[in-house]
Amino acid sequence: MACITFLTDFGTSDEYAGIMKGIILSINPAVSVIDLTHHIDPQDISQAAYILHASYKFFPKETVHVVVVDPGVGGKRDIVAVRFDSFFFVAPDNGVLTLLIDEGQFDEIVRVENSDYFLDKISQTFHGRDIFAPVAAHISAGVNINTLGKPIKQKNLVRVKLHRPFLSSQEELTGIIIGCDHFGNLITNIRPDDFENFLQTNSDNIKVSIGKHRMTGLAPSYDSTDFQHPLAIIGSRGYLEIAVNQGSARQYFGVEKGDGIRIIKS
Amino acid sequence: MACITFLTDFGTSDEYAGIMKGIILSINPAVSVIDLTHHIDPQDISQAAYILHASYKFFPKETVHVVVVDPGVGGKRDIVAVRFDSFFFVAPDNGVLTLLIDEGQFDEIVRVENSDYFLDKISQTFHGRDIFAPVAAHISAGVNINTLGKPIKQKNLVRVKLHRPFLSSQEELTGIIIGCDHFGNLITNIRPDDFENFLQTNSDNIKVSIGKHRMTGLAPSYDSTDFQHPLAIIGSRGYLEIAVNQGSARQYFGVEKGDGIRIIKS
Amino acid sequence: MACITFLTDFGTSDEYAGIMKGIILSINPAVSVIDLTHHIDPQDISQAAYILHASYKFFPKETVHVVVVDPGVGGKRDIVAVRFDSFFFVAPDNGVLTLLIDEGQFDEIVRVENSDYFLDKISQTFHGRDIFAPVAAHISAGVNINTLGKPIKQKNLVRVKLHRPFLSSQEELTGIIIGCDHFGNLITNIRPDDFENFLQTNSDNIKVSIGKHRMTGLAPSYDSTDFQHPLAIIGSRGYLEIAVNQGSARQYFGVEKGDGIRIIKS
Repeated sequence: MACITFLTDFGTSDEYAGIMKGIILSINPAVSVIDLTHHIDPQDISQAAYILHASYKFFPKETVHVVVVDPGVGGKRDIVAVRFDSFFFVAPDNGVLTLLIDEGQFDEIVRVENSDYFLDKISQTFHGRDIFAPVAAHISAGVNINTLGKPIKQKNLVRVKLHRPFLSSQEELTGIIIGCDHFGNLITNIRPDDFENFLQTNSDNIKVSIGKHRMTGLAPSYDSTDFQHPLAIIGSRGYLEIAVNQGSARQYFGVEKGDGIRIIKS
Repeated sequence: MACITFLTDFGTSDEYAGIMKGIILSINPAVSVIDLTHHIDPQDISQAAYILHASYKFFPKETVHVVVVDPGVGGKRDIVAVRFDSFFFVAPDNGVLTLLIDEGQFDEIVRVENSDYFLDKISQTFHGRDIFAPVAAHISAGVNINTLGKPIKQKNLVRVKLHRPFLSSQEELTGIIIGCDHFGNLITNIRPDDFENFLQTNSDNIKVSIGKHRMTGLAPSYDSTDFQHPLAIIGSRGYLEIAVNQGSARQYFGVEKGDGIRIIKS
Repeated sequence: MACITFLTDFGTSDEYAGIMKGIILSINPAVSVIDLTHHIDPQDISQAAYILHASYKFFPKETVHVVVVDPGVGGKRDIVAVRFDSFFFVAPDNGVLTLLIDEGQFDEIVRVENSDYFLDKISQTFHGRDIFAPVAAHISAGVNINTLGKPIKQKNLVRVKLHRPFLSSQEELTGIIIGCDHFGNLITNIRPDDFENFLQTNSDNIKVSIGKHRMTGLAPSYDSTDFQHPLAIIGSRGYLEIAVNQGSARQYFGVEKGDGIRIIKS
């Protein structure tokens, strides 16, 4: 049984994702469609890039990952189909694949332009319905992506510039908060590797500083500090997270996506 | 593989839609259940009528569309099952089918009253669980709708009065905003046909006026105006939409569902 | 076709539930995964206990119900797998099963500790992905739960203390509001049995008092009072609910989860 995922900024209050599923099941009834999330911040390509990268491997091989974070819909941006690491990706060529591009050499990349695999009528505003959904359904049903359009080179794909942590002094690494989850956990762009490579130390010997607050070392679990107290921990995406035991770090610290965070060698 | 959709005002914070799926899979395990949306504004029958009409054709033939926007649950309103245009519909007889009624002659309509197809115990508040879900499951499994109850005439179905655009002067068509999507796009009740029929002109020769703002002509895509600038465009449901390039028209204009919009012949 | 449900406090804005589905389909492609709800208030174990209890029976026999309301993730709490009443349950041993424990003798209970059924790498923060999802998938595929770990006794499972209505005077029963649904209906912890057992009367002879408001008797349907007027009714979970006809009782009364409600013998 084939599998298709959706990663969009549609929200769930409208009929948009439901209609895409209807089109997919019309073409390939034997497919499971999974909502990865529809709550990417509107038009936030970087956020989509991070979540796609953190998620795609947890699905069955051959899964078709469909990304519709697409502020350029109806304009000049291309749509691409990619085969990589036993998965397929259908996405606008706007940078949402950036972290995958950095991961390694794609097996196959094409510009999606063969309208035989589109709906008959293409709207100006909803290519998710008219192009992405039917194309993904056909791929899930076994259509080879090289029938969808001409090959393009990986180096020609659009990339977005993602913030990387940097050494703000000999003893200090500066990163940013790249997102906040439903629990209010603050997810940063800093990985354990970064401590080791930049600060030449490990997680036991750091202080995490956010605003005027400092936390020493990393916690082994959310409940390893007192109730409603903050902690730093390596989160499920593999990045440093700031959390509050049974509370919201977002509220506790009053910070937001894009705000800074510092790691200090102690 | 059969398909059932849900269109409700339940939201997704409660267990209601999940339980309906459990009942459906208990009766017909080989069905795909798709959430069209659960975010119809509570008890907004007109909004449900618009979204059902804009969506139902994008699903596999024989799909059973279940509408539970049902302020009269437990009271005197009927539940009806309809066969039309190769689809099935199960809905309260309260006007949610209005735009379908206007679309053409239904193939079959019955009042749902055969309790053999209901759960054993019927609550006063959740017919979605006790009646709609099991009835839809049985239809998806091949039960003929004429076994569900007595036929009724299409002209006897309840209709809601939907706002239609009207000529407010020789040169001016007035419509309303019927909804606002997750992106803040304002969806109106005006279709391209309306320009041509009422104003005797096409979309190149109109001005769209909302509050004190005027936009000339229709845009070919969301990104065809400057960043954060407004535009008028034909949206994916086939109605005129007001959008802001990478922004929210709802916030930009400070308007809401029910507010007016004018099309002026220029 | 097997069935797995999710009951979590994850919300739907993140990729968490989608990833769990990916892992499940990787292990058992022939399973339907149903979101019961992801909107349990963060870490609210009592609320999860109520909703699980009100919902589990509406699913196909052999369904695996997965509960991830798990503030102790990564700490010392156990994970348990239970067979009961032809269903399976996978949950943290933190009280979310309390109302099921009270329901009767479980057929089988084990502490989940056999890492052959986990993902290879276990994170500190997301056992839903690393343990609950793969374990549930294996159970749905026929793995016997006694292979997952050692049996434990039902009396040793953690219970939470749930508020029960009590006689606040000879003529008065006091309960609390245990939740509020999407419509603003207030759901209490009072069942019809409670009138009969405590007040020695039935629902026709009671007054329901919330703040300074009193309602006489129970309504047969939401629309049996005037538009925007309040009413008391037995809701779909079998508990007394306070609703407002086509309105929100939460707004009308200005009350919240945990506030009191009184039943007075009239």
